[in-house]
Amino acid sequence: MALIVQKYGGTSVGNLDRIRLVAKKVSEARARGDDVVVVISAMAGETDRLIGLANQLSPSPMERDMDLLMSSGERVSAALVAIALNAMGTPAMSFTGRQIGMITDSVHMKARIRKITGEKVRAALAEGKVAVVAGFQGVDEATGSVTTLGRGGSDTSAVAIAVAMKADKCEIYTDVDGVYTTDPNIVPNARRIDVISFDEMLEMASLGAKVLQVRSVEFGKKYNMPIYVKSTFMDVGGTLVTQEMSQMEEVVVSAVAFARDQAKITLLGVPDKPGVAARIFTAVAAKEVNVDVIIKNVSDKGLTDISFTVPKVEVRQTLEALKPVALEIHARDVTHDENIGKVSIVGVGMKSHSGVAAKAFEALAAGGINIMMISTSEIKVSCVVAGDEVNRAVRILHDAFELALPAGQRKSMGGK
Amino acid sequence: MALIVQKYGGTSVGNLDRIRLVAKKVSEARARGDDVVVVISAMAGETDRLIGLANQLSPSPMERDMDLLMSSGERVSAALVAIALNAMGTPAMSFTGRQIGMITDSVHMKARIRKITGEKVRAALAEGKVAVVAGFQGVDEATGSVTTLGRGGSDTSAVAIAVAMKADKCEIYTDVDGVYTTDPNIVPNARRIDVISFDEMLEMASLGAKVLQVRSVEFGKKYNMPIYVKSTFMDVGGTLVTQEMSQMEEVVVSAVAFARDQAKITLLGVPDKPGVAARIFTAVAAKEVNVDVIIKNVSDKGLTDISFTVPKVEVRQTLEALKPVALEIHARDVTHDENIGKVSIVGVGMKSHSGVAAKAFEALAAGGINIMMISTSEIKVSCVVAGDEVNRAVRILHDAFELALPAGQRKSMGGK
Repeated sequence: MALIVQKYGGTSVGNLDRIRLVAKKVSEARARGDDVVVVISAMAGETDRLIGLANQLSPSPMERDMDLLMSSGERVSAALVAIALNAMGTPAMSFTGRQIGMITDSVHMKARIRKITGEKVRAALAEGKVAVVAGFQGVDEATGSVTTLGRGGSDTSAVAIAVAMKADKCEIYTDVDGVYTTDPNIVPNARRIDVISFDEMLEMASLGAKVLQVRSVEFGKKYNMPIYVKSTFMDVGGTLVTQEMSQMEEVVVSAVAFARDQAKITLLGVPDKPGVAARIFTAVAAKEVNVDVIIKNVSDKGLTDISFTVPKVEVRQTLEALKPVALEIHARDVTHDENIGKVSIVGVGMKSHSGVAAKAFEALAAGGINIMMISTSEIKVSCVVAGDEVNRAVRILHDAFELALPAGQRKSMGGK
Repeated sequence: MALIVQKYGGTSVGNLDRIRLVAKKVSEARARGDDVVVVISAMAGETDRLIGLANQLSPSPMERDMDLLMSSGERVSAALVAIALNAMGTPAMSFTGRQIGMITDSVHMKARIRKITGEKVRAALAEGKVAVVAGFQGVDEATGSVTTLGRGGSDTSAVAIAVAMKADKCEIYTDVDGVYTTDPNIVPNARRIDVISFDEMLEMASLGAKVLQVRSVEFGKKYNMPIYVKSTFMDVGGTLVTQEMSQMEEVVVSAVAFARDQAKITLLGVPDKPGVAARIFTAVAAKEVNVDVIIKNVSDKGLTDISFTVPKVEVRQTLEALKPVALEIHARDVTHDENIGKVSIVGVGMKSHSGVAAKAFEALAAGGINIMMISTSEIKVSCVVAGDEVNRAVRILHDAFELALPAGQRKSMGGK
């Protein structure tokens, strides 16, 4: 008898018929003899509705209050799924984050999991019940306050619970049938990827492919918990996210990811001397802002420009954090540009293949696309481009690396 | 500096403008220099919406799941009120039932409060903050499960918190400006009562006057916590519910209350011997059903009929509970009638005035209204009548005791 953790996203529990469908799928898994822990997101649109209410009342609500507010959505849907399961004759019990012992740090709205005690879940399973857990939420042990794990946090809840419960597998059910070589809305002949490594998925998630929250993949990688991404509405397909395997090496580039949620901040006329960059990024980090791509221009008469990208929603905080620093280091000006996008190619095969970045830059240049910033890692090349050129850049790169073809049939750079 | 507990009902937080109005009223109280604890209900309609969702999924959802589901509504509105207060510059902090240490027994959906520890509320007040508490909910200490206190439970939360915090007063803000001699929708010249005793309010609440949950009045009486019923939307008026005072004695009948939420259950042909009634009501009590009026007919050939009223929503459970009992005691049949209503006159003055019940029966008889069941206490007389005669019976009794007049101007039985 295996233990399976299944997570269902907001669209999968978006209305009562879909909640019944989720209950049916869970009942079927249970009927196959497995123990099942179900992790549930808020009904589609609910979290945004709650945030909308708060934002109408306050431009800057306290994050502790926001967490209490937002965590309600998952509680409602977990209770409803448990009610639907019991109505179907599948014994089930609903749990909040606190009740499963999901202990986090004190950083509201993006808390990190410290541990999961899980006694009540184990007790429910031992009684033959399905445990239905409200995702996205935990409790700050020090203060007893409700915390949430950041948007998409239910994925992380699910993988962390799977690890804590020593589950055999973790299935993430969503409204798409797996991970694609890029967004099919932009490139119609994008292909579904059958198996992808944690590292590639991590790059893709952090680059804006919205299938899995990036922290859930980090958890999966750290504890080697395979994650199956599947469709709630189709029985076929799916993508397995797992450890790197030898067969993957033949694929140079696996996918093209992109993001539009970043903005570019530039400090102009900054003295080019040791400690200045540290001063800037320490101030930004103190606001818990995630800085992404950073570039420093070549120095001119002892002055330089420093640009970096941050999430658009954190521009205001970042600019505030920079104000005193800019004065202190005598920067000429601080500017920001929200009309940018980031396009990236991802693939573990890049490690052992040279020329991948060059090929990408050439393809974009041939398409007349100006690259504003570049950032690379062992398995990805990211280019920041103008916001209105993102779609075209994605198509150009998807074509250049022949991602619409099955991996074995790709000519360019394959097996080079 | 006084400590005030203010409770705002669902219509008072029914939309964002009303939430802002609540925040304004709380800020004003705070500006007067008082410490304020605010207890908040779910936004109007939200609890019914959640119950509706559950009922569409299951005819008999588990009560533990229902409590998790329903308690979400108060969490949302408490968070929103705290956000609105902070936005107005009045420091505030939101709390769940668990966070204020509202410990209850394990009876889901109508849990009883065991104790309130309240450390976090005290700490927030000590920091100069308004504590905004989600009403209606607590936590079962043994299992850590969320419990709720029954419909209207936020009133009880508020009075219990006022007692636990040793508050100077407890104000219940609602959509009416006080307690009336009867429902003004039925008797347009009903009068607002300025001061009423706990005992009278207790009878009125249990008889269906919906201004305060009956348990909140019990708490107020037990711990002598005065309760002010006031309108959120008007600054004048209000009713003080307090200990009996000498001036009250002059009023014989204070109000006419009524309820339509009861049904009559009758066991026909029951052996009239010791232990039979106990057997019946033990079985009903085991289902946590609240039995109200009970009558036993005169015995005929060793057999009798026993009738009693229960809340309409508990008819099904009651009939189920009675099935084995009816077989065991060889009752001829069990019937039920949902078309009934209960009309009652209430007044502490009845204690020292005779003939009040007789006057009520005469007035109803003169109006051609058949009394099906009667139940009396020291300070009330209740009559069960046909459901469609309730309104007329209320008007007849309100007239008979001249309740539209100020208490001092009433002729009948006054000062007798």
